[in-house]
Amino acid sequence: MSEPTTNRLDAFDAYRAKMNARILDEGDHRGIKRFFNLDTAAYRDGALDGKTKELLGLVASMVLRCNDCIDYHIEQCMAEGWTEAELEDAMNVALVVGGSIVIPHLRHAVETVDLVKRREGAADDLG
Amino acid sequence: MSEPTTNRLDAFDAYRAKMNARILDEGDHRGIKRFFNLDTAAYRDGALDGKTKELLGLVASMVLRCNDCIDYHIEQCMAEGWTEAELEDAMNVALVVGGSIVIPHLRHAVETVDLVKRREGAADDLG
Amino acid sequence: MSEPTTNRLDAFDAYRAKMNARILDEGDHRGIKRFFNLDTAAYRDGALDGKTKELLGLVASMVLRCNDCIDYHIEQCMAEGWTEAELEDAMNVALVVGGSIVIPHLRHAVETVDLVKRREGAADDLG
Amino acid sequence: MSEPTTNRLDAFDAYRAKMNARILDEGDHRGIKRFFNLDTAAYRDGALDGKTKELLGLVASMVLRCNDCIDYHIEQCMAEGWTEAELEDAMNVALVVGGSIVIPHLRHAVETVDLVKRREGAADDLG
Amino acid sequence: MSEPTTNRLDAFDAYRAKMNARILDEGDHRGIKRFFNLDTAAYRDGALDGKTKELLGLVASMVLRCNDCIDYHIEQCMAEGWTEAELEDAMNVALVVGGSIVIPHLRHAVETVDLVKRREGAADDLG
Amino acid sequence: MSEPTTNRLDAFDAYRAKMNARILDEGDHRGIKRFFNLDTAAYRDGALDGKTKELLGLVASMVLRCNDCIDYHIEQCMAEGWTEAELEDAMNVALVVGGSIVIPHLRHAVETVDLVKRREGAADDLG
Repeated sequence: MSEPTTNRLDAFDAYRAKMNARILDEGDHRGIKRFFNLDTAAYRDGALDGKTKELLGLVASMVLRCNDCIDYHIEQCMAEGWTEAELEDAMNVALVVGGSIVIPHLRHAVETVDLVKRREGAADDLG
Repeated sequence: MSEPTTNRLDAFDAYRAKMNARILDEGDHRGIKRFFNLDTAAYRDGALDGKTKELLGLVASMVLRCNDCIDYHIEQCMAEGWTEAELEDAMNVALVVGGSIVIPHLRHAVETVDLVKRREGAADDLG
Repeated sequence: MSEPTTNRLDAFDAYRAKMNARILDEGDHRGIKRFFNLDTAAYRDGALDGKTKELLGLVASMVLRCNDCIDYHIEQCMAEGWTEAELEDAMNVALVVGGSIVIPHLRHAVETVDLVKRREGAADDLG
Repeated sequence: MSEPTTNRLDAFDAYRAKMNARILDEGDHRGIKRFFNLDTAAYRDGALDGKTKELLGLVASMVLRCNDCIDYHIEQCMAEGWTEAELEDAMNVALVVGGSIVIPHLRHAVETVDLVKRREGAADDLG
Repeated sequence: MSEPTTNRLDAFDAYRAKMNARILDEGDHRGIKRFFNLDTAAYRDGALDGKTKELLGLVASMVLRCNDCIDYHIEQCMAEGWTEAELEDAMNVALVVGGSIVIPHLRHAVETVDLVKRREGAADDLG
Repeated sequence: MSEPTTNRLDAFDAYRAKMNARILDEGDHRGIKRFFNLDTAAYRDGALDGKTKELLGLVASMVLRCNDCIDYHIEQCMAEGWTEAELEDAMNVALVVGGSIVIPHLRHAVETVDLVKRREGAADDLG
């Protein structure tokens, strides 16, 4: 049975999609559009594969303490196949580099992992 | 033939070793010593291998803009076998996440890669 | 017809006014009061005009990633007469300097511009 | 009479407790657990007493602009006996060091002090 | 008569040019090259003129506390015609937003303004 | 016997004094001068004594990772009578809050404590 209620991760995804459309489709700033393209390109397979780069993006987001960025990269990391144990190991690096000021974002990140797992579980139930 | 002159990376390594000895051997703060142990442990093989974690440490250091941390993690990354092309790909993620304010640290990082290669070349000449 | 419902920008304005009164009227810390005065003075006409300084304040707020500060400076910038295209050009500088970690704040900022425009539209309808 | 409704500080305390249990009790990452222990130990009496260290933690949290960390350290500081005037004096140092970008967090901190006082008042009424 | 000795600003310019050539000419990372192009483009005339954008870049660099970025943007700002009084007014905004932690960078910035003026004076003497 | 050679701390003190004179005596920006006054006032005895506030300033400087600010506050803290053990305990709080990215600044801070002690020893020898 699918989850009927919207959680904070679903709300973030919807807001992110709406505002990206506002910026990129309704807006016409060439520099901003190019930046978004460059950002997307940075996580494509290259000398490093995209999966590894998403993990780099997650750790960068955690030490810079941006919850929205953390949510986005956790979704990407889990879609790329990183396991929960591997994500926690990466989060530990972020925690040690960034210190206890990262702890609130660690709480957020762990909750986001749980929300993605619940979403995946709901999808399996529907399958 | 070995390089006779000391470059900035050799000077950093020597200063780092001297001050770590000052803090950990002469000093006796239990909390600080435990933190250093925890820091070392964070990069050991776990769910993720140590090689991957060093790359995470490098990207975290770049977006937080710490040249000493960048130097240390580049030395570790190259010892772990990451190639120059892979390091540049990781640096690109750091650059896109952290923005142009990272560029001075990218210059520093690329120079450090060159210094490590020169050091390795000198070691090969001695071999 | 005016908007009957309170949006997040109205809520921010009300909270900001309430807490500033709590700090400056009920509170009696001389240093804190002097800091608030100094902050206000920094955006008055000087060698640079106040309009330019508000744009500087906006970009500083974006690269330091403070949504409340962004909201305040967007309100001031639009009251000073900066156009939406000019604000986007300033936001682009902030995005390039600060990197993709600024993107969630860019989304917020663009939404705030839209909220101020809606507020202005409502005021026109009432005029 | 006790406050029947849950305020944002109560909600934070509950979320913090729930997620810490999720990370430390359900989770099994040794490095993360060690970090939490190290964090707790840093505020115990040592060469400096725990009361002084909590004030250091508050100022560090304010200049790094983390509202959750601010809430936690204000609760600890007030439990340790720091007066409101002393907390404001510490907040002033944080404001001057960190600049106007700290102001939204000063608003939050002052509100948290008020929430803790209200909570203490409610406890007295129940006593 | 021109200054015969190299000062720190000349040394920075030379290092910056050398390492940018190393990264962009010898290097071949497409993402990094695109980022440098995007960075350059962000300061070109648009809805805002390039002169205004350089001032935005200076303030962003000061609150993010990057001396190399400060040096670069001061050189650009002075070439664009901003006066010393105007630059100080912009620096004051950065100081108030960023706090006393910006003061060491304010010292650096004021010294850089003096170095550019001395350089310009030397050029005039040669004219 | 006094130390004949200038160390990095003496050089910092001299540069700081020279540039502060440049900014405050030669310069005439009223906002900048007021900020410097406000900064000085923040560390005077108030609800908290000046000695405690200097320790707050040190921890704030360490988590924000500013070596010049660290040097200044260590000099002030030691003049106020904080012992080396107490300073290390404060540094430990900064290290845990700010993470391993603070370690290079911890090395710097410990070296500065040693330089101040050497300076005090030299003064004693002259007494």
